[in-house]
Amino acid sequence: LHEDAMMQAADRLDRLTKPQGSLGRLEQLAVQLAGIRGEPLPRFPRKAAVVMAGDHGVCEEGVSAYPAEVTPQMVLNMLSGGAAINVLARQAGADVFCVDVGISGDVRHPDLIERKVRRGTANMCAGPAMTREEALRSLAVGMEVAGLLAGRGVTLVAAGEMGIGNTTPSAAIAAVLAGVPVETVVGRGTGLDDEGLAVKREAVRRAIAVNRPDSDDPVDVLAKVGGLEIAALAGLMLGAATRRIPVVIDGFISSAAALAAVRLCPAVLSYLIASHLSEERGHAVVLDALGLAPPIRLDMRLGEGSGAVLGLHLVEAASRLIGEMATFDSAGVSRRRED
Amino acid sequence: LHEDAMMQAADRLDRLTKPQGSLGRLEQLAVQLAGIRGEPLPRFPRKAAVVMAGDHGVCEEGVSAYPAEVTPQMVLNMLSGGAAINVLARQAGADVFCVDVGISGDVRHPDLIERKVRRGTANMCAGPAMTREEALRSLAVGMEVAGLLAGRGVTLVAAGEMGIGNTTPSAAIAAVLAGVPVETVVGRGTGLDDEGLAVKREAVRRAIAVNRPDSDDPVDVLAKVGGLEIAALAGLMLGAATRRIPVVIDGFISSAAALAAVRLCPAVLSYLIASHLSEERGHAVVLDALGLAPPIRLDMRLGEGSGAVLGLHLVEAASRLIGEMATFDSAGVSRRRED
Repeated sequence: LHEDAMMQAADRLDRLTKPQGSLGRLEQLAVQLAGIRGEPLPRFPRKAAVVMAGDHGVCEEGVSAYPAEVTPQMVLNMLSGGAAINVLARQAGADVFCVDVGISGDVRHPDLIERKVRRGTANMCAGPAMTREEALRSLAVGMEVAGLLAGRGVTLVAAGEMGIGNTTPSAAIAAVLAGVPVETVVGRGTGLDDEGLAVKREAVRRAIAVNRPDSDDPVDVLAKVGGLEIAALAGLMLGAATRRIPVVIDGFISSAAALAAVRLCPAVLSYLIASHLSEERGHAVVLDALGLAPPIRLDMRLGEGSGAVLGLHLVEAASRLIGEMATFDSAGVSRRRED
Repeated sequence: LHEDAMMQAADRLDRLTKPQGSLGRLEQLAVQLAGIRGEPLPRFPRKAAVVMAGDHGVCEEGVSAYPAEVTPQMVLNMLSGGAAINVLARQAGADVFCVDVGISGDVRHPDLIERKVRRGTANMCAGPAMTREEALRSLAVGMEVAGLLAGRGVTLVAAGEMGIGNTTPSAAIAAVLAGVPVETVVGRGTGLDDEGLAVKREAVRRAIAVNRPDSDDPVDVLAKVGGLEIAALAGLMLGAATRRIPVVIDGFISSAAALAAVRLCPAVLSYLIASHLSEERGHAVVLDALGLAPPIRLDMRLGEGSGAVLGLHLVEAASRLIGEMATFDSAGVSRRRED
């Protein structure tokens, strides 16, 4: 990060008409944003919500409450503007970009970014979800999308996904990379009952036992027990960081991708901003492993980037506060007694 | 609340293209908003941030890190658009209304709503902060402002305040009305050191001992150990509720006012929406007493309504989601397997 810009930002924050530090984490966020953008008063006129989409062979095991056909249906819904992410992105002034990294079926829409690496992953309970090369290609899709966004002037990204069944590979990634027991990261996803939860837990255990992913090799983990859209999200974060674009992460899946990205390149962490704590069981575990504290708690469990887009308002707030507030001197306000 | 509208809202939420309940507390909020407004798809085109301002005689005891002259200076700053609340309100599309309920000095500005009940409270450590009549007049100011806002078409209010020293009476109100020990609700305010904190704690204890406010009589509590702007905030909440206007509460002071309002009229609670959990010590205690859970955690401790205005984005999100999302039928998306 750009240390000069961060020092200038911190200095300005202390001259604004408010008790020092009273904007709490918005002040830390303003300093982080200054460091990322390399300017003391960063602004974010162009924002994007990215939805990486892919399908999951592990759905065969019955790990999701929804049928896999919902992935393309929901992507079309997003392309038509009817999904939650569209509504929330409109409110936040962000454009939605949908990327087909690995939907099983065919989705055709002029606005869809078609980068299908393969038609869904293989069932990771029976073998690797994808080859190492496919994982690398998915990562590359994410990096390419970061470049595409940068080319369009986007300076702030919310990282979301769509893929029926994708809390299952996310749980496997989290368990392996955070080194925690499977049961601490397997949750109900879109709404599994107790029986479904047990099936899912067993599927994650089996996937790890069958594939033995190497926890020191994030690409191996993404390939063997990951997902195409999850690897693409990790690539998006890597690519955004190289272009000084802060990325607001979403819920469990987005955070699992962030963990993989940070393990690939620890410097990426400084470019990530936590948004909400979702209701999905493993989310807190993954955020802990990242050392990030989410400011929003709404018990959401939707994905798509919905929580990340809510977080955009807080990023915008931090940016506006440091850019627009009056200083003690300019407003003629007295400082504290001790000063 | 309007039960028909709430049922229609809940029914619509279940038909939107998302797993049932996956928007978490935004769904509960959407139902609450429907009930308050009496329409299943409530919209909030006109929003307001209200800043009730007043001074505090108890500042003589050395309970604040800032001199009392900062109250009028900051109110002028707000009227000029340079304070944090202005920046955040612009972002949220809310108009800021500043009300002089009891500033000690004179503030002149065409946009200031002048309703001075008296020039600051008396020092509550030596006797009542104000008379019962003055407390009632302050409550009436708040109710009048609610009417004024309603007349201008405002349908959503963020409730903030400005008043050097006002975490001290808020702590006294909280201790008495929530029935908790003084030390659990006295915090550092705008930035007291340990010594200042001890002085403040002692001041609150003395104020309660000297005045013996009746915990069953919220007006008595507001008069003896309260503040003019705090009573006005309570009145604002009462007045807003009668006009079916939801009120987003802010930090410790705004929440102490909410507790007084709810004790005066328990039905008001359904019209209140929590925003953030501030860093000020007693805030969590007061929100607990109200049974409200704040969705935002940014360790802010500024007041002004700054956290409440951040909360407006979540209210807007809930309103837009229920109003704009596609349904399963309209979007051709499959429901879950069990359905």
